[in-house]
Amino acid sequence: MSKPKAALVTENVIEVPDAHDPVLICGLPGSGYVGKLAADHLVSSLDLKKVAEYSSSTFPPQVSVKEDGTVDPPRGELYFAQAKEGRGVFVFTADAQPTSSEGEYELSDAVVRFAKKCGVTKVYTLAAYITGSFSKSPKVFGSGTSKRMVESLSEEGVTLMKDGGISGMNGLLIGVAALRGLEGACLLGETSGYVVDAGASKAVLETLSKVIGLRLDTSKLEEKAAETQKVISQLQAMADQSREAAPQSEREQRPAYFG
Amino acid sequence: MSKPKAALVTENVIEVPDAHDPVLICGLPGSGYVGKLAADHLVSSLDLKKVAEYSSSTFPPQVSVKEDGTVDPPRGELYFAQAKEGRGVFVFTADAQPTSSEGEYELSDAVVRFAKKCGVTKVYTLAAYITGSFSKSPKVFGSGTSKRMVESLSEEGVTLMKDGGISGMNGLLIGVAALRGLEGACLLGETSGYVVDAGASKAVLETLSKVIGLRLDTSKLEEKAAETQKVISQLQAMADQSREAAPQSEREQRPAYFG
Amino acid sequence: MSKPKAALVTENVIEVPDAHDPVLICGLPGSGYVGKLAADHLVSSLDLKKVAEYSSSTFPPQVSVKEDGTVDPPRGELYFAQAKEGRGVFVFTADAQPTSSEGEYELSDAVVRFAKKCGVTKVYTLAAYITGSFSKSPKVFGSGTSKRMVESLSEEGVTLMKDGGISGMNGLLIGVAALRGLEGACLLGETSGYVVDAGASKAVLETLSKVIGLRLDTSKLEEKAAETQKVISQLQAMADQSREAAPQSEREQRPAYFG
Amino acid sequence: MSKPKAALVTENVIEVPDAHDPVLICGLPGSGYVGKLAADHLVSSLDLKKVAEYSSSTFPPQVSVKEDGTVDPPRGELYFAQAKEGRGVFVFTADAQPTSSEGEYELSDAVVRFAKKCGVTKVYTLAAYITGSFSKSPKVFGSGTSKRMVESLSEEGVTLMKDGGISGMNGLLIGVAALRGLEGACLLGETSGYVVDAGASKAVLETLSKVIGLRLDTSKLEEKAAETQKVISQLQAMADQSREAAPQSEREQRPAYFG
Repeated sequence: MSKPKAALVTENVIEVPDAHDPVLICGLPGSGYVGKLAADHLVSSLDLKKVAEYSSSTFPPQVSVKEDGTVDPPRGELYFAQAKEGRGVFVFTADAQPTSSEGEYELSDAVVRFAKKCGVTKVYTLAAYITGSFSKSPKVFGSGTSKRMVESLSEEGVTLMKDGGISGMNGLLIGVAALRGLEGACLLGETSGYVVDAGASKAVLETLSKVIGLRLDTSKLEEKAAETQKVISQLQAMADQSREAAPQSEREQRPAYFG
Repeated sequence: MSKPKAALVTENVIEVPDAHDPVLICGLPGSGYVGKLAADHLVSSLDLKKVAEYSSSTFPPQVSVKEDGTVDPPRGELYFAQAKEGRGVFVFTADAQPTSSEGEYELSDAVVRFAKKCGVTKVYTLAAYITGSFSKSPKVFGSGTSKRMVESLSEEGVTLMKDGGISGMNGLLIGVAALRGLEGACLLGETSGYVVDAGASKAVLETLSKVIGLRLDTSKLEEKAAETQKVISQLQAMADQSREAAPQSEREQRPAYFG
Repeated sequence: MSKPKAALVTENVIEVPDAHDPVLICGLPGSGYVGKLAADHLVSSLDLKKVAEYSSSTFPPQVSVKEDGTVDPPRGELYFAQAKEGRGVFVFTADAQPTSSEGEYELSDAVVRFAKKCGVTKVYTLAAYITGSFSKSPKVFGSGTSKRMVESLSEEGVTLMKDGGISGMNGLLIGVAALRGLEGACLLGETSGYVVDAGASKAVLETLSKVIGLRLDTSKLEEKAAETQKVISQLQAMADQSREAAPQSEREQRPAYFG
Repeated sequence: MSKPKAALVTENVIEVPDAHDPVLICGLPGSGYVGKLAADHLVSSLDLKKVAEYSSSTFPPQVSVKEDGTVDPPRGELYFAQAKEGRGVFVFTADAQPTSSEGEYELSDAVVRFAKKCGVTKVYTLAAYITGSFSKSPKVFGSGTSKRMVESLSEEGVTLMKDGGISGMNGLLIGVAALRGLEGACLLGETSGYVVDAGASKAVLETLSKVIGLRLDTSKLEEKAAETQKVISQLQAMADQSREAAPQSEREQRPAYFG
């Protein structure tokens, strides 16, 4: 038993891109899949190319079966494209979040170091702000690692957080960015926490595009957001029906968001 | 406290076999012991020889007492035999699954690397597909790491999975195989999840023998499967009796599989 | 997967101070924030300077949002100042306690080794002694790593513990100090465990100042303690009211400390 | 974050003793403190000297307060004495068991390796066999790593286990002994699992003394066993009383051991 223990995260670099004025945007699975949907939309709509893959012994020990019957182990993926006139865009996403604190720290650190080496100075993460109620025009909340970052969000209409915390990789990535000398900000889309919420993803991406000066086509997310809206309407209709049937005392115990 | 931490898995190689056209088959303890029973049957019926042992500090910290009164710590074991005309067969099994994600990844990685070094290009794992109901002729479900693997299963009557996941080493081993450049497939025998199910083991082995072109004598498993069937019949008889005694309302709450 | 696993704690030394007759005082977040409030008070009232920072992959994976809208990852911080005539004072505090045994041991070890290198021979930790009841003049309990330390506490009116244990970093730091050849003692302020308790912090600091011969201005803590007292009075008033309204049987189930 | 992670266990060797025909006996805290009481009795009655100490970042992160008001971190301790005419005796015990599988494996491995280096070929662990009922003359159960070891127990009246497992360090130590080429056996004293049981400790020590040919004075344990017996009698009296008061239907739900 003398071999040293292996690192928790393995980085497989496909290509170190030649990036100009690059920014790193991260969205991982979490409540409402707000960040993950947003990141996946960036990858497909901006036609990004994969530049690095991350495997980790702290990802959940399982494989997922896809529609075509094939399986994949959980992986982290870093994508990139250089806009001809404009910024280079890195997007980091993953199939799952690591199962331990140590795994989350090491994965965050690996991604931030790669991005820093490529010239990134600012890291944005996209996440969910859970309210427990459904909103037709979700607000975008935000926080940052410096006053300058916080002000840049505020200027674009972001509601600044004043307390609380941001858990998991979407929070940790900007914390680790700060430890490595970069700046970071997190944009959180208001969501109920009950459904996969493409509307919240669309809201954070629209805000992000203003903050970092990036042109984005969100039409596909709009379609998905419309689907989300249908699901929500059905849930509300069901809630209304059962409320009518329920006696008054029970009705008052219902959470406010159905009111 | 300056010594580096030891690796989680220790590999003790007994012999690196001279293998021709080898395949790796894995079955570990899990629901219904479907994979473990199948792997044990392969080891004894094909007269395989042990070629490597794996100990790990992530196996459950305990020893198991055997019928002869002696104890064994949990271990992983890799067996091999070269068919005179035909394929070399590696079988990996273990007394238990590791207790942490990291342990599962490292053990999977150690086994896959050894097999790859010996020329293995395809890894098959045998597992359980839990339905909650008893079936006299268990179906075999499957999934694979490539479309080619998935098709090879489909041709032999395997029902392809379209979603869900495969948890633990039986899923992870083919995921890690893919990360190491091999192909992998998992065959899952339909089982209730309530009893050790030799019938499901027999079903996955019969399918496996067709998929990889391996002659197998499953008569011993047939005996065990007949015992399983007796146990199931008794369980159903008991259920029928208590159902007759139970009032209607309770009866409807029973799960469908006794119906 | 061949890179060795990184250490759980990273030490970032800002300055190795030139310390005379130094002592290390530690207070980390825990019940009633007794130790953390006391440590923070020492840092601000003695005008200490940060000499080292500790990050750890075992801190909770999250960032906390501050009042100005910016975020910080959890961190450990070591402060120092040299009194002109008197002792050097190191104070260690952190935003959170590590999430695993290993993290707690490694962080304790890193801090103790740094302090030892700077000439520290005695380590004091400040913690909470939970009684479940509110007290206007909280007692100070204590324990130490040697009879000499225990006697030095006893001489200043500390109530010596005779059994039980001290969990987490506030206990572990003096245990690790002993393993490294230093002496240690823990001062525990009596507290209910229900509120952030500046009164208990003030009590342990007043005792500490006598034990180590350190002049301290606790007026700011006195203000906070007065606020704590108001909160407690309100809680008790609410409890009295609801007790009057409650039937006798329920009243007897209330905990003794409201009686 | 480039320093490799430290080992989980640190061994502090005080003296490598010159041992003749030595044997290693281990008893750690567990159910009924059977093994721990027995090990502590050996250390004091045979006047053993400490030869090594083990600290571990996987011990529970806390310190325990002793009767004299001082604290100790959890530690493992290895003791030794050479009988003038007879065998060398190593005894290993600890204040607690590690909190993770990995910690248990590494600690077991460190102790077994040290013992092997000193010429030990056989490892005995002392543990509890929980029955849920009180017995005035507790049986001793046993298991071993080889048929020879199992037979040597059987010859001295030990009831051989035929299935089940032995969890934790008391089981793992003989498993790891086998992995390192030594032989091992576990003696388990029958105990209820409800009280600290010196009677069971006495029973395993009397059997051990016959198995390894070691003269032992168990008079102090006899005193403690008498105290245990008093506590059990009181518990049974209380149970009898409450049984008389309870209606028949409830009485039948009581476990058999009060019958």
